[in-house]
Amino acid sequence: MTQPSLLKLEQHDAFIHRHIGPDEAQIKEMLEALGVASLDELIGKTVPSAIRKQDDLELDDAVNEEEALAELRSLAKRNKIYRTFIGMGYHDTITPNVILRNVLENPGWYTAYTPYQPEIAQGRLEGLLNFQQMIMDLTGMELANASMLDEGTAAAEAMAMCKRQAKRNKSNVFFVDADCHPQTIAVVKTRAEHFGFEVVVGNPEQDLPEELFGALLQYPGSTGVVRDLTDIISKVHDSNGLVTVAADLMSLVALKAPGEMGADVVVGCNQRFGIPMGYGGPHAGFFAFREAYKRSAPGRIIGVSVDSKGKRALRMAMQTREQHIRREKANSNICTSQVLLAVMSAFYAIYHGPEGLKTIAARIQRLADILASALRKQGFELTHESWFDTLTVIAGDQRDTIYQRALEAGINLRKVDSDALGISLHETASLDDVSDILSAFTGGDHGLDLRAMDSEIAAKGSLGLPASLARDTEFLTHPVFNSYHSETEMLRYLKTLESKDIALNHSMIPLGSCTMKLNATAEMIPVTWPEFGKLHPFAPVEQAEGYAEMFSQLQQMLAACTGYDAVSLQPNAGSQGEYAGLVAIKKYFEAKGETQRDICLIPASAHGTNPASAMMVSMKVVVVACDSRGNVDMDDLKAKVEEHGDRIAALMVTYPSTHGVFEEGIREVCELIHNAGGQVYIDGANMNALIGVAAPGKFGGDVSHLNLHKTFCIPHGGGGPGMGPIAVGEHLKPYLAGHPVTGVPETDTANGTISAAPWGSASILPISWMYIRMMGKSGMKRATEVAILNANYVAKRLSEHFSLLYTGSNGFIAHECLVDLRPLKESAGITEEDIAKRLMDFGFHAPTMSFPVAGTLMIEPTESESKEELDRFITAMATIRREVEDVANGKFSAEDNPLHNAPHTLEDVMADEWVHSYSRDVAGRPAPWLKEHKVWPASNRIDNVYGDRNLICSCPPVESYMD
Amino acid sequence: MTQPSLLKLEQHDAFIHRHIGPDEAQIKEMLEALGVASLDELIGKTVPSAIRKQDDLELDDAVNEEEALAELRSLAKRNKIYRTFIGMGYHDTITPNVILRNVLENPGWYTAYTPYQPEIAQGRLEGLLNFQQMIMDLTGMELANASMLDEGTAAAEAMAMCKRQAKRNKSNVFFVDADCHPQTIAVVKTRAEHFGFEVVVGNPEQDLPEELFGALLQYPGSTGVVRDLTDIISKVHDSNGLVTVAADLMSLVALKAPGEMGADVVVGCNQRFGIPMGYGGPHAGFFAFREAYKRSAPGRIIGVSVDSKGKRALRMAMQTREQHIRREKANSNICTSQVLLAVMSAFYAIYHGPEGLKTIAARIQRLADILASALRKQGFELTHESWFDTLTVIAGDQRDTIYQRALEAGINLRKVDSDALGISLHETASLDDVSDILSAFTGGDHGLDLRAMDSEIAAKGSLGLPASLARDTEFLTHPVFNSYHSETEMLRYLKTLESKDIALNHSMIPLGSCTMKLNATAEMIPVTWPEFGKLHPFAPVEQAEGYAEMFSQLQQMLAACTGYDAVSLQPNAGSQGEYAGLVAIKKYFEAKGETQRDICLIPASAHGTNPASAMMVSMKVVVVACDSRGNVDMDDLKAKVEEHGDRIAALMVTYPSTHGVFEEGIREVCELIHNAGGQVYIDGANMNALIGVAAPGKFGGDVSHLNLHKTFCIPHGGGGPGMGPIAVGEHLKPYLAGHPVTGVPETDTANGTISAAPWGSASILPISWMYIRMMGKSGMKRATEVAILNANYVAKRLSEHFSLLYTGSNGFIAHECLVDLRPLKESAGITEEDIAKRLMDFGFHAPTMSFPVAGTLMIEPTESESKEELDRFITAMATIRREVEDVANGKFSAEDNPLHNAPHTLEDVMADEWVHSYSRDVAGRPAPWLKEHKVWPASNRIDNVYGDRNLICSCPPVESYMD
Repeated sequence: MTQPSLLKLEQHDAFIHRHIGPDEAQIKEMLEALGVASLDELIGKTVPSAIRKQDDLELDDAVNEEEALAELRSLAKRNKIYRTFIGMGYHDTITPNVILRNVLENPGWYTAYTPYQPEIAQGRLEGLLNFQQMIMDLTGMELANASMLDEGTAAAEAMAMCKRQAKRNKSNVFFVDADCHPQTIAVVKTRAEHFGFEVVVGNPEQDLPEELFGALLQYPGSTGVVRDLTDIISKVHDSNGLVTVAADLMSLVALKAPGEMGADVVVGCNQRFGIPMGYGGPHAGFFAFREAYKRSAPGRIIGVSVDSKGKRALRMAMQTREQHIRREKANSNICTSQVLLAVMSAFYAIYHGPEGLKTIAARIQRLADILASALRKQGFELTHESWFDTLTVIAGDQRDTIYQRALEAGINLRKVDSDALGISLHETASLDDVSDILSAFTGGDHGLDLRAMDSEIAAKGSLGLPASLARDTEFLTHPVFNSYHSETEMLRYLKTLESKDIALNHSMIPLGSCTMKLNATAEMIPVTWPEFGKLHPFAPVEQAEGYAEMFSQLQQMLAACTGYDAVSLQPNAGSQGEYAGLVAIKKYFEAKGETQRDICLIPASAHGTNPASAMMVSMKVVVVACDSRGNVDMDDLKAKVEEHGDRIAALMVTYPSTHGVFEEGIREVCELIHNAGGQVYIDGANMNALIGVAAPGKFGGDVSHLNLHKTFCIPHGGGGPGMGPIAVGEHLKPYLAGHPVTGVPETDTANGTISAAPWGSASILPISWMYIRMMGKSGMKRATEVAILNANYVAKRLSEHFSLLYTGSNGFIAHECLVDLRPLKESAGITEEDIAKRLMDFGFHAPTMSFPVAGTLMIEPTESESKEELDRFITAMATIRREVEDVANGKFSAEDNPLHNAPHTLEDVMADEWVHSYSRDVAGRPAPWLKEHKVWPASNRIDNVYGDRNLICSCPPVESYMD
Repeated sequence: MTQPSLLKLEQHDAFIHRHIGPDEAQIKEMLEALGVASLDELIGKTVPSAIRKQDDLELDDAVNEEEALAELRSLAKRNKIYRTFIGMGYHDTITPNVILRNVLENPGWYTAYTPYQPEIAQGRLEGLLNFQQMIMDLTGMELANASMLDEGTAAAEAMAMCKRQAKRNKSNVFFVDADCHPQTIAVVKTRAEHFGFEVVVGNPEQDLPEELFGALLQYPGSTGVVRDLTDIISKVHDSNGLVTVAADLMSLVALKAPGEMGADVVVGCNQRFGIPMGYGGPHAGFFAFREAYKRSAPGRIIGVSVDSKGKRALRMAMQTREQHIRREKANSNICTSQVLLAVMSAFYAIYHGPEGLKTIAARIQRLADILASALRKQGFELTHESWFDTLTVIAGDQRDTIYQRALEAGINLRKVDSDALGISLHETASLDDVSDILSAFTGGDHGLDLRAMDSEIAAKGSLGLPASLARDTEFLTHPVFNSYHSETEMLRYLKTLESKDIALNHSMIPLGSCTMKLNATAEMIPVTWPEFGKLHPFAPVEQAEGYAEMFSQLQQMLAACTGYDAVSLQPNAGSQGEYAGLVAIKKYFEAKGETQRDICLIPASAHGTNPASAMMVSMKVVVVACDSRGNVDMDDLKAKVEEHGDRIAALMVTYPSTHGVFEEGIREVCELIHNAGGQVYIDGANMNALIGVAAPGKFGGDVSHLNLHKTFCIPHGGGGPGMGPIAVGEHLKPYLAGHPVTGVPETDTANGTISAAPWGSASILPISWMYIRMMGKSGMKRATEVAILNANYVAKRLSEHFSLLYTGSNGFIAHECLVDLRPLKESAGITEEDIAKRLMDFGFHAPTMSFPVAGTLMIEPTESESKEELDRFITAMATIRREVEDVANGKFSAEDNPLHNAPHTLEDVMADEWVHSYSRDVAGRPAPWLKEHKVWPASNRIDNVYGDRNLICSCPPVESYMD
């Protein structure tokens, strides 16, 4: 028995020991290996005393999983789920249960990383290719990317791309259809403002300017109208402008595709294809375009390539566009997509198939027809003569009465303007809903026989859908969309894909800068509670009290973790956070009248998004050099500050640095900038090394974005979703983003709008709330300490085999280490890619490659990995090092060695003839733990060049499967 | 667009098309292959017109997944979750979320079949071995089986085994401690009654009879007392009797193990190790015993063996005991265990480790001490001076007032007798709970400082736990219990195990008689709703209105599906259903005064459980011959009826037969028996071929058990849980089992008690409810039709390659077919085992082997498999057939061929040297679909004989892993 005197009657801190990988004994062993006596001593030797936090985090004590879930459940219950017909891009939908449980609730899918290593990511790459095919089919476009953050930002990215593409067009004007969703208009306007574009909002049939570089149209209109856009598009083309159509995915099942009308870009959102509304997200925006724009399009594109054996394989095409965004010319900083949601919607389409989707769309449309017909019978006038699913009803002075009656019946309608109400029908709507809506309009029993009206419409044809715009082209004809309609078949297809991918449920993913830590089940459980999932982002705020309280608590928690004063939850990716932070800085200087401040200083070691974000707010990027330890070169910084003086708007700096060290001089750096009147943006990518031991808001930062999908346990979802809230000092608080539809407390819409939804991807915020709540003040600090311990242990052990780049002044690193592989290239011709691929043979996902320094691997184990797993990884790396040596010393030839041939597939190790100078076991099972379990790479090394030269981003034809 | 006129505004029947594998086009193709024009024609040609059902099933129309979930949710909400301290073997517990999501909610675990094919079941076999080790360690016994149905039946099985073992002891008396749980006493008494044993219930310190063959003691007592059992056990041993101790698993963490006191058998339940109470189940009973009884012990035992390459591998040991229970001597019919629950509890122990368990047990015990101390301070007297977690408080005439006050505070206590109340503390209990209980006793603020009392007890040592009985032996010292305490490590361990097993999420499991159909996600979702999970089976029935209504609806549904008049939901496995049915028949004859009826006629083709069940009610089994088509030999039946006349109690017959045909003469068979005054038991194993096309309750059956885990979609859980309700005619309804604690409506406790819980494994009944509700009257019938179609299609296609045994008069079969492999043994020396193992190489789980006819495979595809999957299976079988031919014609030698060497592991196909006469690809990937995905067998063929000769049922020592 536990000694009675040691017994804690409460086990509130139980989760901390579940989240942190190493136990006390392991921690002791690792400390010993590092030659320090305690975690405290280690932190003392890594974190500069000048910034080290002395007091406790201002967080509550930890509670355990059950307590935290109960607490969050009581918040969730304060959300009220109404039948919601607000539309505006968000619609109730049904997530097929087989997808819900086996994808959204399955760590095999949600804990995977972005598919940078395609040989062990063919499952989700196929899911994404399906998504692209689905978007191409439905929009009628030649290409589609693998998703965007939301419809609003997709439209804004389209605007930027139109500007890039329309090179001969010198106009600065972008036209926006007034019948776009208001949040889309707001996001586009914000972007335009900071790019310096002029936005004209109006009726495209009347208000199109003579000169413009592009136009954005909504199809069907936000208020429901369905019109042929061919002529308008043609007119814009005549002005050498390009046209983006923001389209509703479900309507495209029934309507002529925008591609057929001449659209250059089609954007939208996949939400109503089986993704919970989630009070605004996460969903996947989509982006379809002409093939001609393929090198200019934002986001990621999955392409078909071949592997080294000539077998078809998928990969992210044209990756170089992304990780090395051209700093000076960037007008996009996008680097995340919404993989988990994109594949879910593709699975939705696969499960229903084209016929199933047609039935769903036809039902929705029929219900709209019945409602329209009934409203007219009751004397109501509709704004438009055409519709797919959305009606705008002129209610005049009855508007508020009707709206209120609907509310009392548990129904949300849209207030369109002072005398009109909007109703959008959707997948879950029923004839009973139509009847209840009608009763809200008539005020009592409407007395109509809706079934009879259904029959009448069935006989006569649709009232609202113009016959000329009915879709007459096939879609989703590929076999993948026509094979898995029973649950058994679907389940097995999902399992087949899942089995090809390495995710955190298999082994460590030690990606530097990406913090692939535990995504605990207790954190994930609330995500699929209907109380969080079934809320429309524009539902009356009274119905979202639980969310409001959760936001407020999370904001306080994040402020406490960072030392800042206020937090905006709107940015739904790290890139959006950077942008939002710079926008706030810009607004701040505008208010102070210091509009001349247009320079952003960025150290050479920065993440590529930093300069891109600066470009997006029209700041001029000035690069500051780094010294030999990877620190900011103080002399160069001083010189740049001297040179640019009061033109300096901001310095963007990552802390601890992307080189994995706590720079001693960070306070001095911040002071230098502040003395010059500039603001300090501290990139929060590496916040996992700071919480509880130092606070950027206290040592000089004015604003940071937080990657909740790194430090705060939101899973990477195979490449998204993420969340990128920003934390700011009190002085920047008045400049946080607002929202045009649902007011975000204490913000101003004049500050602009960053994301389509007021609180970004609200429904995944419970993950971070749960994490912080369950770790509490001591656990959050402990996690940081063990993250630093694990990284230093790995660094120390690896230093016996490799040379490391950069350490702090005491020889310790922060939470990640850089292994220098350039000497191996010289001695043996082995590249970092060889090593990355060889790690797959050991069952590991490679660390980050060649960032921030070419020819290196950046390793971040995180606090969630046990010593056993770290030791396995170290063993793998040491074994690989010996193999490199054997190439160098000629035991292996340069052409035939386990590194050059990596990764090895099952085909390889099962080959009839074995032609290599090493054994099959060395090829495929080079370490003992692989005999228990291994995810085999589904492909040999994939040819990047071939894929980019021969870009195919759609599902390959059936014949090509016969290989 | 869907043609408007064809559009169904409601999609209530959407689920039917998800459940049934083949779509319309595939059904058409298969019908064509069979040469029939329609499903109706096919059914007309398979189901005898004499029994074919003409009218619709008396079920509601189908509703879709969302509608059914909403309906069930509204029922679930009528269950009220109180804080429950009733004890009596059921305690609130926490299912660790990582286990909840990744095991209980994961089709990779819950859709697996019983591990008869161990090479593709090493994952759950390891889980079960861990379970056995855990039970052995905690009970202090030499061996443990892989679980029983519940504590009550485990105790009853222990009684039967003691009788078997105590051979020299001629006594018929079994002593039962009066302080056993009342439901255990009831189950034991029922068994004893039908075996003809005499049960003496009393205080073991005073009432032990001189002569007895065994005794059952409870440790700690149901009312809480903890006493040293050594002397009592010794006394029973002196009388040549054996002692079974029913022990509480959590208490064993803190208490001296019963094995150390001399117990011969230790039984109990794993529920409080992380399994939801679920209003009674499913949980895993446990059964630990002396090694000397290993061949006599009931249930399954997992043992360590070696495979054909000498590598350690797990299997079910001594399987021959089970599938071929010796008909004449059987006194157990058990053949299911509770695999899913057993492995969950082992994972619970692994996740907490011995130290974690000690903390949990110590907390519980401390809370009991605090409560005891406080109650005494308040003047209450306790019945016992010792306790672990359970107190019995003498409340006198305040009993009802206190009980009521507790209820008003949302607290359930146990009414022990007229003046005492029981309180059992548990894992989720807190100091606040103790305080609230205390307030219920004192009626208002109790005014005590419980924290101070905690400190006092911490200083002085436990009040209730006798120092002499404190556990001083180590347990769970094996590394597996000391390695996976972080969530990341646990998650990966679970995934590693899952990856070794074939389950329905990978491929078809075409097991004849086992009906491995889709277990739809929508059916599984309610199982883990707290409203179903967190109810104590003995909670006041007013708190379980939702359950009551669900039971009542399910009973009606099952009656409608079978044509019977009443349903008992108590039997928690098919074997228990058989037993319950025969008990009802026996009680019926007792009431009629026909106690001379003691013969049970059973056709030779019956399931082995049938005669075993008959033996358990002391009926004499008389075997009826089968004719060459596998039908009951009418002449022999008539002769047997003639011969035994009014001694005939029952005929047990499976319909359609285990030979997979609808016997034409079934009505005649039933009439014969009825005319002789006997009852007809129709074994419901093959009910999947009947629903909607024929009703056993209408064509002559008096009683049937239903395997809800076959026909009604409860997943097999890797070898349990199941549910075996019985449906009976009106005349048998008065003889259905009752329950001594919670009255089951319309039953009489005098009929006996079959399972520990009143409604068996209540929390999985929602699965069947959902299935029937979503299929509705037309879907249920359709499923039957397509099951028959799929089976006939497979049979037809296989008949091109194999000879089939048995068809109906029109050449069609029912829902399964028997492939005769005996000719292959003659021609090529290939056995059915070779073919079963070779199927693994194709990614398939083998069909049922050698049942009901040795040398055959029995194939049941079910309605959930698509034509594609059936075609893959047929391709596999045809390929295998050609391989057999190649052995026969000498292309392959008898010693080296793909069949003899099957299954092939990754080690095999990666071997440095390839010594076989066929390629590696033929060995490991003999069909194209395997290139996409395959579960590789974790072992080569496992040696059954070795494992039984060298029985090891515990986790192998660490050194043995170093191979």
